[in-house]
Amino acid sequence: MDDTAAARQAAYAYVDSLEQRDWPRLTALLADDVVYEMPQTRERIRGRQAFVRFNADYPGDWHLRARRVLADGSRAALLLDVRVGDETLDACIWLDLGDDGLITRITDYWPAAYDPPTGREHLTERW
Amino acid sequence: MDDTAAARQAAYAYVDSLEQRDWPRLTALLADDVVYEMPQTRERIRGRQAFVRFNADYPGDWHLRARRVLADGSRAALLLDVRVGDETLDACIWLDLGDDGLITRITDYWPAAYDPPTGREHLTERW
Repeated sequence: MDDTAAARQAAYAYVDSLEQRDWPRLTALLADDVVYEMPQTRERIRGRQAFVRFNADYPGDWHLRARRVLADGSRAALLLDVRVGDETLDACIWLDLGDDGLITRITDYWPAAYDPPTGREHLTERW
Repeated sequence: MDDTAAARQAAYAYVDSLEQRDWPRLTALLADDVVYEMPQTRERIRGRQAFVRFNADYPGDWHLRARRVLADGSRAALLLDVRVGDETLDACIWLDLGDDGLITRITDYWPAAYDPPTGREHLTERW
């Protein structure tokens, strides 16, 4: 299996193990010193033990579904449909894998809804 | 050139033509009926003429730099460093290409900074 195929497989397994709350499976995907970053809050979690605990403790009835998965060499990008109770949002996730196929870095973006600025209604439609 | 190589080339050219304000070059990358969507505001722009105008009219001294570009078949994902005056932010862009190598769909996310929720300080550090 080449790097791209391994990255694709890891990306799908990452989402599936989170959705299934399969913490041993998630742990097995991660490098021991994985770094997880949320640039919007400038939060960082170091190490797979803390990262798995962060997810296991994460409140709410959250569900993840992969809408897009791109793999390219030792990297993957995921566009997720996220549902938390009645709320839905999209997430953009970037993964880096090491030579051993384990995930070494996770960069998560949680783009929230906002009202569009005025002045471009002549070019846009809304849905 | 295979689909992935064409998607990669289109993704870099997309960012570069925007950064250079090279509207003819940008136009040449786009399908005539390209659809541009911003899911956070639920805005949609149809057609390359309107999309190029949207960018040409976009206010501010904005600059784009590709931090990550992934290409996978007829799709690409871009993580951009965006600078508008003194403000910096990240953007997550998803591109779809048609069989002719032109960009048919652009999905843009502009994740804004926010304060982290309380209760997870024991697992996270800040930067």
